[in-house]
Amino acid sequence: MIDGFACKPADKVAETDFFFAGLAGTKPSAAAAPLGSAVTAGDVLAIPGLNTLGISMSRIDYAAAGGLNPPHLHPRASEILFVIAGRLEVGFITAAGKLVSKTVSKGQVFVFPQGLMHFERNKDDVLATAIAAFDSELPGTQRVPVALFAAVPPVADFVLARAFGLETEVVKKIEAGITPKN
Amino acid sequence: MIDGFACKPADKVAETDFFFAGLAGTKPSAAAAPLGSAVTAGDVLAIPGLNTLGISMSRIDYAAAGGLNPPHLHPRASEILFVIAGRLEVGFITAAGKLVSKTVSKGQVFVFPQGLMHFERNKDDVLATAIAAFDSELPGTQRVPVALFAAVPPVADFVLARAFGLETEVVKKIEAGITPKN
Amino acid sequence: MIDGFACKPADKVAETDFFFAGLAGTKPSAAAAPLGSAVTAGDVLAIPGLNTLGISMSRIDYAAAGGLNPPHLHPRASEILFVIAGRLEVGFITAAGKLVSKTVSKGQVFVFPQGLMHFERNKDDVLATAIAAFDSELPGTQRVPVALFAAVPPVADFVLARAFGLETEVVKKIEAGITPKN
Amino acid sequence: MIDGFACKPADKVAETDFFFAGLAGTKPSAAAAPLGSAVTAGDVLAIPGLNTLGISMSRIDYAAAGGLNPPHLHPRASEILFVIAGRLEVGFITAAGKLVSKTVSKGQVFVFPQGLMHFERNKDDVLATAIAAFDSELPGTQRVPVALFAAVPPVADFVLARAFGLETEVVKKIEAGITPKN
Amino acid sequence: MIDGFACKPADKVAETDFFFAGLAGTKPSAAAAPLGSAVTAGDVLAIPGLNTLGISMSRIDYAAAGGLNPPHLHPRASEILFVIAGRLEVGFITAAGKLVSKTVSKGQVFVFPQGLMHFERNKDDVLATAIAAFDSELPGTQRVPVALFAAVPPVADFVLARAFGLETEVVKKIEAGITPKN
Amino acid sequence: MIDGFACKPADKVAETDFFFAGLAGTKPSAAAAPLGSAVTAGDVLAIPGLNTLGISMSRIDYAAAGGLNPPHLHPRASEILFVIAGRLEVGFITAAGKLVSKTVSKGQVFVFPQGLMHFERNKDDVLATAIAAFDSELPGTQRVPVALFAAVPPVADFVLARAFGLETEVVKKIEAGITPKN
Repeated sequence: MIDGFACKPADKVAETDFFFAGLAGTKPSAAAAPLGSAVTAGDVLAIPGLNTLGISMSRIDYAAAGGLNPPHLHPRASEILFVIAGRLEVGFITAAGKLVSKTVSKGQVFVFPQGLMHFERNKDDVLATAIAAFDSELPGTQRVPVALFAAVPPVADFVLARAFGLETEVVKKIEAGITPKN
Repeated sequence: MIDGFACKPADKVAETDFFFAGLAGTKPSAAAAPLGSAVTAGDVLAIPGLNTLGISMSRIDYAAAGGLNPPHLHPRASEILFVIAGRLEVGFITAAGKLVSKTVSKGQVFVFPQGLMHFERNKDDVLATAIAAFDSELPGTQRVPVALFAAVPPVADFVLARAFGLETEVVKKIEAGITPKN
Repeated sequence: MIDGFACKPADKVAETDFFFAGLAGTKPSAAAAPLGSAVTAGDVLAIPGLNTLGISMSRIDYAAAGGLNPPHLHPRASEILFVIAGRLEVGFITAAGKLVSKTVSKGQVFVFPQGLMHFERNKDDVLATAIAAFDSELPGTQRVPVALFAAVPPVADFVLARAFGLETEVVKKIEAGITPKN
Repeated sequence: MIDGFACKPADKVAETDFFFAGLAGTKPSAAAAPLGSAVTAGDVLAIPGLNTLGISMSRIDYAAAGGLNPPHLHPRASEILFVIAGRLEVGFITAAGKLVSKTVSKGQVFVFPQGLMHFERNKDDVLATAIAAFDSELPGTQRVPVALFAAVPPVADFVLARAFGLETEVVKKIEAGITPKN
Repeated sequence: MIDGFACKPADKVAETDFFFAGLAGTKPSAAAAPLGSAVTAGDVLAIPGLNTLGISMSRIDYAAAGGLNPPHLHPRASEILFVIAGRLEVGFITAAGKLVSKTVSKGQVFVFPQGLMHFERNKDDVLATAIAAFDSELPGTQRVPVALFAAVPPVADFVLARAFGLETEVVKKIEAGITPKN
Repeated sequence: MIDGFACKPADKVAETDFFFAGLAGTKPSAAAAPLGSAVTAGDVLAIPGLNTLGISMSRIDYAAAGGLNPPHLHPRASEILFVIAGRLEVGFITAAGKLVSKTVSKGQVFVFPQGLMHFERNKDDVLATAIAAFDSELPGTQRVPVALFAAVPPVADFVLARAFGLETEVVKKIEAGITPKN
């Protein structure tokens, strides 16, 4: 649990504290995003009533033909992903270095254990959409490429170069291509 | 957390342990159910990989024109409900006796805090479907009418009669109309 | 844990923060209550020192000859009940629909697992009293009949009618007979 | 939570798993005990249904005129004490070294925060009895004098001598006077 | 978790919130302390960034030839001790009264389960130093002799006398020799 | 907590269950490792007594002149790092994309919040060593480059290429240079 959010007095609680419309509708932003995916978060920042309840939900949209939610992790939550539309290639890597992956179609679910890196990719020629639930009201997210290659201030080049076995100029090229928008 | 489920050795873990197809497809059972709703559970009994992860997901289908998921509760989890199709009247009652309710349309979400009684109802003339996520791998469910009026062995008539202010014959009539299938 | 209560500075802590006299003495209110039972709560609202400690205690008094603590649940706690005086018929219903019940006499204890509906009834001709402990400093309580049939605003009649298999006029009769005082 | 206890299949659960008669009746053992107190535990070892529920209960009897539950602690639980009969002097010491103490009479309660040393003493000329609830199904107990001066194998004399500022012969005298029965 | 500490807004977080220099350097205070040991705490009071993270660290220095960290306990945490310099006799007592002890040399670790009394002693002729980690950002500490014999206000002499089988004058002598500085 | 480890009967518990010598001595392996760092884990797999205690400890050795513990994360724990020898450049990236970094010298500590990517690097010309404590008995570790570029089976090249903005041939070059030994 993450504290720091105030509890409303019981008699001030309203139905809007437990409701969120932000996951509905069409989301054209995925196609425009650099990696072809867009996340809309329904966490405690969006839904005040989630405070102390230990659960939240996000929507992810994937552009056609390769829309990618790149390798990322949620530091405080496991995730269960439900595909609403389309078909996704998904996978996570275990702490022992095993890739656990699957093609998940509309109506099917896949689980990403807490804190492990995972990704989803839309290989088909139509938009795909998924709903993800988390066992935290504020699961947090780190997209690996953005966190490492577009941190502010930046992670030292030699750390990234040695870690990934890259020459410094390649590191600089990656950094130039990645922005926090990725 | 509920224990009692074995942990697989890491090298035996397979992608099927984290996958579930059972929430997909059409669910004609809702229309046939006495109350016009049918729940398909994606908990640790269906998805072994959920063990210790503290999350799970269910699908609920609602028949047209009144399909009802009657007042019920989950003893070990909060719930976040996402409407996939149709439109639902939903509500929960706080411990202070306040009804917190809302009409929730396709793509919108509503939250039911842990352990509180809640319900959903489809007022429209088309099928409705929702996905519910829980912060427990085995949230459990008690449908109030079934639990109280169709327990095995039965709850004593005078308990129910006095609790609800009913004459014993009315209790017996309710019991006759309710089965664990409700 | 429920947050929202302030922590006192350690040097301001007093013995009265950890003490409660409100469970002592005679409680004539049970006999006067509509269902013949009265609950006195010793939770964090009454005992500030319970904040963050995850425990609390209530006293329940039962009128002679049928005093009933009607089917209810605690959304955030398991309960262990100790009978101080008299003899009670108690029971809870499992998530699988099984009634687990027993006669519990003075000095004996019974356990109600977290979030499951349960009840106690005094069948004898003398007052009965019990102490209940909870693994939450604010377990909360929902009395099922009151929560469903006397919510403010009310739960729609057709929800209750269909859920319990009742005609609307019976629902209205139940509602008329139940007040939040029950 | 302490694991290591098996979960029963739901259909094997019986009412006796949730019931305990061992706290009832008269307990003559308190008067005979070296320190004039006797504890009867209603934890998961006595009540199998408590497994995973995070709660348990004990009964403590105190001989007249000085019956003492000596300074002790519960490593895994907070405690809330309810006096059934008689009157007790109780106290706990905070981590800051403050004694928080009170006289607690029949029907009153006092709280001992998790892991802190505390004690109860019967100053009156009649037996006293209390019920203690814990937010763990296996809270554990360490009576300080017994744990330190009657451990098996023994704590080295020089540790105890230096810690308490005692000469070794006094340590040996204390050890001779204390047995695990204390 | 202990609440009561404020969460900083994410954009105000600084590296100094997660850094602590107070465990470094030489600690001459151990030799001067009455029992020959000195503890420096790196808990949430010293490192604000530990708030909600559930971990903290202390340094303990032991004077040569008998420096003793006397029997004590941490009410809210287990401990893992790593010896940086020297060699320590360490032990804890289980709830069943068994002493679990060992000689732990530089670079070795020993574990003290949550809430159980334990101690460390430097038998060698050189200073010893250890680092202790806790699974709480505010584990708290009770040194048993100080807590019992130097509480403010004091624990009644007859409680201590009876608990330890001491004559009152011996209790008074212990009290005279122990101060909160011990 | 991770279950799946058996609890020993209390009378079978031995001091060796709570002891670990594996973090002591010299660790020449760091210099030989591809990235110049080597981790020795003292988790529940190495120390059986840690089961259910929620804490563990690792030692990390860093080769001189650039020994790197590359960007990695612990899916189930926060970490507190204590530098035993040498001096380290350390940092973690917040969920908001901020690098929080510091130079940490011998005897100083730094904190890495749960699940967030972090790294340590030895810039000096001497070996460096640190001790890391975790609030889990089995925190797990994912080294980002190894997990993503040396998973078995491999993560699809186009996922990595698009995520990091790399041409496929560069991805293949990284994969060729990284083995699970990194």
